Amino acid sequence: MDFTVETATAAVIESFQGAPDPRLREVLESLSRHLHDFVRDIEPTMAEWEAAIGFLTAVGRQCDDTRQEFVLLSDVLGVSMLVETLNGAEQGTESTVLGPFHMTASPRRELGDTIDLLGTGRPCVVSGRVTSVDGTPLAGAELDVWQCSEDGFYDVQQPGVQPPGNGRGLFHTGPDGTYWFRTVIPSHYPIPTDGPVGDLLTATGRHPYRPAHIHFIAGADGHRRVTTHAFVGGSPYLESDAVFAVKRGLIVDFTESHDPAAAAGFGVDAPFTHATFDIVLAPATGA
Amino acid sequence: MDFTVETATAAVIESFQGAPDPRLREVLESLSRHLHDFVRDIEPTMAEWEAAIGFLTAVGRQCDDTRQEFVLLSDVLGVSMLVETLNGAEQGTESTVLGPFHMTASPRRELGDTIDLLGTGRPCVVSGRVTSVDGTPLAGAELDVWQCSEDGFYDVQQPGVQPPGNGRGLFHTGPDGTYWFRTVIPSHYPIPTDGPVGDLLTATGRHPYRPAHIHFIAGADGHRRVTTHAFVGGSPYLESDAVFAVKRGLIVDFTESHDPAAAAGFGVDAPFTHATFDIVLAPATGA
Repeated sequence: MDFTVETATAAVIESFQGAPDPRLREVLESLSRHLHDFVRDIEPTMAEWEAAIGFLTAVGRQCDDTRQEFVLLSDVLGVSMLVETLNGAEQGTESTVLGPFHMTASPRRELGDTIDLLGTGRPCVVSGRVTSVDGTPLAGAELDVWQCSEDGFYDVQQPGVQPPGNGRGLFHTGPDGTYWFRTVIPSHYPIPTDGPVGDLLTATGRHPYRPAHIHFIAGADGHRRVTTHAFVGGSPYLESDAVFAVKRGLIVDFTESHDPAAAAGFGVDAPFTHATFDIVLAPATGA
Repeated sequence: MDFTVETATAAVIESFQGAPDPRLREVLESLSRHLHDFVRDIEPTMAEWEAAIGFLTAVGRQCDDTRQEFVLLSDVLGVSMLVETLNGAEQGTESTVLGPFHMTASPRRELGDTIDLLGTGRPCVVSGRVTSVDGTPLAGAELDVWQCSEDGFYDVQQPGVQPPGNGRGLFHTGPDGTYWFRTVIPSHYPIPTDGPVGDLLTATGRHPYRPAHIHFIAGADGHRRVTTHAFVGGSPYLESDAVFAVKRGLIVDFTESHDPAAAAGFGVDAPFTHATFDIVLAPATGA
């Protein structure tokens, strides 16, 4: 009956045996086992335990309607990306993290529209094709796109500076499964560093930057939705994304084109930047 | 370079290699390993991950100046008790959790004083001796004592009902190492259940009760301080303390005495309740 370092885990697991939900029981058993193993491994002093409680409390205090510091903590510990990867399809375009900025609906736009409502910078065209894993083009596939500005901020971070919907668009592929839209090349940017997660990064000598990327959620009837990024090839921090979200297959070349005909085809002036990001959707689960 | 389920942990551990503090590096390496093992073990869905973030956020929201829901979470997962046990001395009276109610200074009292300022219930005398592990009586040892009322509430939980300092006393042992004070038998009581930790207990079919106990922190020059409880023998929930704090060696008989001479010696009327709780202090670390 005595609670000892050796019997602690069995006692806590035993306490959860009456949970009616078998999945909850399974999760709490595993949590108890791994959490206790962690504690036995590091043997915290009482002061260290108090510091851990204080850190979690500070993370909680930083959370509000527009800031989710626990998600940020999950991100910088690689947990978000691990969960995302465990849930990703085995076929098709790889998934990566959703991130915290998919908080407003993207405005519906037509193919070829620009999502750069600020009119800044060199025009950039992103185009590609959405297909099934067997190569079948997917007409009418939905593409939810969002990205930060050339200065590294999402519209929701700069009310009054960026109009709502800047950098966002909801597109549907044409009859041949292709899509294209105009934008500017997004910038790399830091995750928020003014809270306890920022303090953790500082204390451990880690930088807070994410490499430049454009977010996509792509879906089509009969197919699994994929949440992913197109990373800008050559961006700083591709090798050290603060949230571990880079996958090699998602890095895209953003190349300069001086071809006036190509530019005209996309409705821009040469020179322009062009990136091709094809998306392959796995069949829906059970399909 | 790709982040996969297999390489995730190495990537996160690598990110902490620049931490200047070797202990922080060690703790974060171990945390990354055990946390990722937990995630790989349970393979949470995205919805389950969101529920976990939501739970932690709710725990944070419940914390304020007088309520520490993360400590409560640590308690019901057996983590507080595990850390306490890892930090306990190998000799002498066993330690147990501090708990959340040691938040005000105990009033200095003389041996034989009562800590029952309400004057309720049958008189109860708690007495004992504080010694070194070799049996040497420790004169002038400090005993910080606190307990809940017969109704199961600490003074700080009932402002206006209990006077401040009810159930609390700071005593010093006499020349022969003995102590005694008057009180009432404390009640078993529930930990706070109006927050997310209470929801967790409900969802898992766990009760929130702690068996009746009196808290002690005992210390003397040249000896390690011990934070412990005297549990009331026969109390409900001794076999299922919600915070796992019971150790068999800390259960004390509270017996009824009809001996008028004994009663007079303690300054009470017979019949009275008597409990003996001797405390053995380990040598100070390095002593």
